[in-house]
Amino acid sequence: MSLSHFDAQGQAHMVDVSDKEVTDRVAVAEGAVVMLPETLEYVLAGTAKKGDVLGIARVAGIMGAKKCSDLIPLCHPLPITKVALDLVPDAALPGVRITATVKTSGQTGVEMEALTAVSTAALTVYDMLKAVEKSMRIEGIRVVLKDGGKSGRYEAN
Amino acid sequence: MSLSHFDAQGQAHMVDVSDKEVTDRVAVAEGAVVMLPETLEYVLAGTAKKGDVLGIARVAGIMGAKKCSDLIPLCHPLPITKVALDLVPDAALPGVRITATVKTSGQTGVEMEALTAVSTAALTVYDMLKAVEKSMRIEGIRVVLKDGGKSGRYEAN
Amino acid sequence: MSLSHFDAQGQAHMVDVSDKEVTDRVAVAEGAVVMLPETLEYVLAGTAKKGDVLGIARVAGIMGAKKCSDLIPLCHPLPITKVALDLVPDAALPGVRITATVKTSGQTGVEMEALTAVSTAALTVYDMLKAVEKSMRIEGIRVVLKDGGKSGRYEAN
Amino acid sequence: MSLSHFDAQGQAHMVDVSDKEVTDRVAVAEGAVVMLPETLEYVLAGTAKKGDVLGIARVAGIMGAKKCSDLIPLCHPLPITKVALDLVPDAALPGVRITATVKTSGQTGVEMEALTAVSTAALTVYDMLKAVEKSMRIEGIRVVLKDGGKSGRYEAN
Amino acid sequence: MSLSHFDAQGQAHMVDVSDKEVTDRVAVAEGAVVMLPETLEYVLAGTAKKGDVLGIARVAGIMGAKKCSDLIPLCHPLPITKVALDLVPDAALPGVRITATVKTSGQTGVEMEALTAVSTAALTVYDMLKAVEKSMRIEGIRVVLKDGGKSGRYEAN
Amino acid sequence: MSLSHFDAQGQAHMVDVSDKEVTDRVAVAEGAVVMLPETLEYVLAGTAKKGDVLGIARVAGIMGAKKCSDLIPLCHPLPITKVALDLVPDAALPGVRITATVKTSGQTGVEMEALTAVSTAALTVYDMLKAVEKSMRIEGIRVVLKDGGKSGRYEAN
Repeated sequence: MSLSHFDAQGQAHMVDVSDKEVTDRVAVAEGAVVMLPETLEYVLAGTAKKGDVLGIARVAGIMGAKKCSDLIPLCHPLPITKVALDLVPDAALPGVRITATVKTSGQTGVEMEALTAVSTAALTVYDMLKAVEKSMRIEGIRVVLKDGGKSGRYEAN
Repeated sequence: MSLSHFDAQGQAHMVDVSDKEVTDRVAVAEGAVVMLPETLEYVLAGTAKKGDVLGIARVAGIMGAKKCSDLIPLCHPLPITKVALDLVPDAALPGVRITATVKTSGQTGVEMEALTAVSTAALTVYDMLKAVEKSMRIEGIRVVLKDGGKSGRYEAN
Repeated sequence: MSLSHFDAQGQAHMVDVSDKEVTDRVAVAEGAVVMLPETLEYVLAGTAKKGDVLGIARVAGIMGAKKCSDLIPLCHPLPITKVALDLVPDAALPGVRITATVKTSGQTGVEMEALTAVSTAALTVYDMLKAVEKSMRIEGIRVVLKDGGKSGRYEAN
Repeated sequence: MSLSHFDAQGQAHMVDVSDKEVTDRVAVAEGAVVMLPETLEYVLAGTAKKGDVLGIARVAGIMGAKKCSDLIPLCHPLPITKVALDLVPDAALPGVRITATVKTSGQTGVEMEALTAVSTAALTVYDMLKAVEKSMRIEGIRVVLKDGGKSGRYEAN
Repeated sequence: MSLSHFDAQGQAHMVDVSDKEVTDRVAVAEGAVVMLPETLEYVLAGTAKKGDVLGIARVAGIMGAKKCSDLIPLCHPLPITKVALDLVPDAALPGVRITATVKTSGQTGVEMEALTAVSTAALTVYDMLKAVEKSMRIEGIRVVLKDGGKSGRYEAN
Repeated sequence: MSLSHFDAQGQAHMVDVSDKEVTDRVAVAEGAVVMLPETLEYVLAGTAKKGDVLGIARVAGIMGAKKCSDLIPLCHPLPITKVALDLVPDAALPGVRITATVKTSGQTGVEMEALTAVSTAALTVYDMLKAVEKSMRIEGIRVVLKDGGKSGRYEAN
């Protein structure tokens, strides 16, 4: 097996997808921002309407998905048809769990868009809370589900 | 202590830094892409000149740092004066360790730029290797060092 | 009736349009920049070939339509197939009347693209004339016509 | 008096500000989205936590201010040091009143950034409510205050 | 024959392509950066793994193709399906020859995307070598091949 | 001498300019679009007010200068203080000669911004005339003057 982003000489290119079928595609990615319990308090207070950290990170994640092909050098620009983000405070972590779902009807998958949405939302959570804690960590960003297209369904276990 | 990104009514704003001093600032962030040993083989082969995964991710990370204020809603645009990324294959992980160093001479810090550089480079590593492994994970993105400015030096332990 | 940009929990998302039909869609929006008669003189002189305010605002409006999904958080990226702007000096206003027509063949409408085109052109008119008048106002930006797609034809009265 | 954005031959250029002093500058702009009373109800319900129209428009306005020099052809890129937006439902209008305050420490003013913030927030309000009313209008976008720099203080009356 | 980018009044617009067929389209463009023989030595050394000028210019060219409709005022945004760049050192020039191939499945051609890819790659070569030679020149950027669409095949001779 | 864009290991980075002095800097670049005499007729007719090719290319060039650090991977973002473009039809070429002047007050030069302005304007000229001639060529893009900063004045001969 070889890396599709490189040609026979090992030179990077944007893979030719012009012969691929236009199919409905979906991808789900997840990740988390891990923080101190007292930092999470600010998030919980925020959802209680004094500084909506999760609401702003959700918008940033949606907009981030749309910038994916601008950020990732060899990504194809795609007409995204849906982006949704779920940001859930989790006291057990403690921190915020982030899930992004992206859909398109196109010739290539949208897992990079979903991962970029999660990353951008996570960075935004960090940005909005960094005044109270610098030691937060972004963890476990990965693809949970990918479907549509020739390579078939992928589900993380 | 309160979140600087929200005003007294809890409404988001871009913090007023106009009275802050222009000082030299630096931030270092790190993270990793964890993968199967056989996926790492492709990276190692790449640095040996058949598909330079790390070289392309490095460029993506540098460009990502420049897009930080475009991606993160409440970030100030800053005249970045330096961006450097280090991407090191690590067989013990196994995977790729990423470190980004960003400098500016400005009124606010560059830790978000450094974190965005690491994130973008990590996403690019994922993109270039996803044809051989979908189960890679981006882990441990955090600020390692931040210096310059009124709040003083921060070093992760 | 509920707001389509929010889910059942009131959280913002980019609406799923993947099951909508691809149809030809058109939208027309309008607006105006109201100014002093002596400011309008500069515009009229400009069209007479000494500083083409309207020509530059027209280009800005066309480019603005293309940036719509980048500016408006929950807008879908769309393959625009036509943008035309009409900028007409109107001594009765006095000021400049702006109309934008945008077309696409896609799964969602282009009224936001048309409104963004008008807004960007109006802001550019302001920018180019602000040296002579700061009290200009942008007025009456609205959708005049929207057609194509399931929700049918809309015409302002 | 002549238009500074054109040279002696009437050709557009980005004005040379390199000899201007770096001073603290502020600008305030305002505008409104006028709607039916029943549409305003959705906004009011939203601030009550089912679809935060104003919160999302506020974020869009802040990000719009940062895109100003990218949208307006002859605008200088500026290191913005503050952006704040106020979005207030007004039953008398009926609609939403928007005010934006932008600061920089630079060689040219930020009134275009403030106007762009208001415009982008207004367009976002339209986008999020258009499912319930297409006849909304964006009205009265203007500069309310501009200060700092050689041309002195301007206040709308 | 008239210029399609202007209407009957001579006003610029983005041409209406909504009635054009969606067909597979390809364009190839080329150009060169001409330099002193001793500057070319740096490039050759670079491919030998100390500073990969051509690798970075290749990535820049691919990303440049994706920015085409953002840079060129009247260009349509297009879902690019392939971008490949070839950068070849040529001692006879002396300098670097650049070729870009772009594909889409759309309603208008991709020659502007191919030309933008070549231009951006050439500018990047200049940027990375300017410390050793300021007198480099970018020469001979042109369309070599264009195919697909109603206007038929074009080949440069 | 070594390439400043690479570190000792040959890895690309954005050069650290934080210790460089902030000085006034200027750069002038030039280039040309070479075309058939009958194509140039369209340009000349255009300046006579039926399709202003040069006016639109001038705006594109100014906006292109502002996108330089977004396009060229290792370029520093800079607060540009002036951009001016001159586009002159030349029957002897035949074609259009383009000159761009860019100024900043910063820690690094603006020759890349000037070259990007010329390139973008040239591409726009091509785009607007390609309906009548596909064989146009962009030629002779180079730096004519660079001044300010430690490396001193450079003038092409």
